Amino acid sequence: MTIQLHCFGESGNAYKAALALELSGLDWEPVFVDFFGGATRSEDFRRDLNPMGEAPVMVDGDVKLTQSGVIQMYVTETTGKFGGTTPEEAREVMRWVFWDNHKLSSQAGMTRFLMNFLPEDKRPQPVIDFMQGRLKAAYATLDAHLDGRDWIVGDGLTNADLSCCGYLYYPEPFGFERQDWPHIDAWLTRLSQQPGWKHPYALMPGSPADRA
Amino acid sequence: MTIQLHCFGESGNAYKAALALELSGLDWEPVFVDFFGGATRSEDFRRDLNPMGEAPVMVDGDVKLTQSGVIQMYVTETTGKFGGTTPEEAREVMRWVFWDNHKLSSQAGMTRFLMNFLPEDKRPQPVIDFMQGRLKAAYATLDAHLDGRDWIVGDGLTNADLSCCGYLYYPEPFGFERQDWPHIDAWLTRLSQQPGWKHPYALMPGSPADRA
Repeated sequence: MTIQLHCFGESGNAYKAALALELSGLDWEPVFVDFFGGATRSEDFRRDLNPMGEAPVMVDGDVKLTQSGVIQMYVTETTGKFGGTTPEEAREVMRWVFWDNHKLSSQAGMTRFLMNFLPEDKRPQPVIDFMQGRLKAAYATLDAHLDGRDWIVGDGLTNADLSCCGYLYYPEPFGFERQDWPHIDAWLTRLSQQPGWKHPYALMPGSPADRA
Repeated sequence: MTIQLHCFGESGNAYKAALALELSGLDWEPVFVDFFGGATRSEDFRRDLNPMGEAPVMVDGDVKLTQSGVIQMYVTETTGKFGGTTPEEAREVMRWVFWDNHKLSSQAGMTRFLMNFLPEDKRPQPVIDFMQGRLKAAYATLDAHLDGRDWIVGDGLTNADLSCCGYLYYPEPFGFERQDWPHIDAWLTRLSQQPGWKHPYALMPGSPADRA
């Protein structure tokens, strides 16, 4: 049975799940969530897909999961891929996935939303400035870690990479400039050269171009 | 060997790990981290304990872990406790632990810090107001989920509870009022009645009283 991922192109959190599914070789298809039309906040969505009111949602037969980190764990459980090769690596992968959810993707996603997807007169500049400061500390941590490493954990691609990259390929400005962080820049290039890699707007339906 | 948890009382993220260790019955001891003296930002801390510059850090012999969610997974791996009783419950536990890291504890911790631990003339009111709005959505999600349930997942205490409660017992104001959320309120009371439960300022060294 084909796995369905309810997602939309603008969501880096959905991208983390979609990219794990795609690169794992599992049979999956995206189902468009009209986030900007209010879909995730609707009664139907909360009742049928996710009471948390968030995308992505993965449906694989009877299994319905949300939270990109948990969907990534499910891909690992199902295929043996991206989870690290030892118990130590497995913990280190989870450590970076949690760090990403806590310090990188959560804050990057919110800041990008405020700067690009709110009407100009509704953008809370003091919040944007504050979040950009916090994000710089996160970029610095990741950049320093990637100095001398090809991948975040061990010798190959893991969920740590697939999580931390979630918002970093998007073209909309949110204060992240690849050239400022050379080790992140090289790692993003390396990851994008993996067979089967796709940009979020190519991997999932929906993009700002649709609403232009 | 006694497990050491580098932590401090004011940290709800550390509390999530400390409470899991305490209620699991594992042999552990807290090691005070002088966060307000700058310890987590020091070169020594980043080199010896955590390059991410964050507490808590757990040390169990050769195993050194950070991120409260990963320490909780380690407690489950070691003791069989708090991880849910079926694969479905295990995924549901992780779903709430990720949700907490993403939407509840991360934002509650930051907002509480800004409102209580910064000098009054440095508190960014627009950021505080914005974060309180986002947190209300998180409280509403958790409160609705706990309607008719004793615990977040299944019939007993899991890491989902031990994660989501991280910042909710603290006395410092950050916009969370227990009486506004009756199902959260009842669940916090239920959790605090578990044998061995302790308040964060009783479980870990360091509290605002030390700096008064």
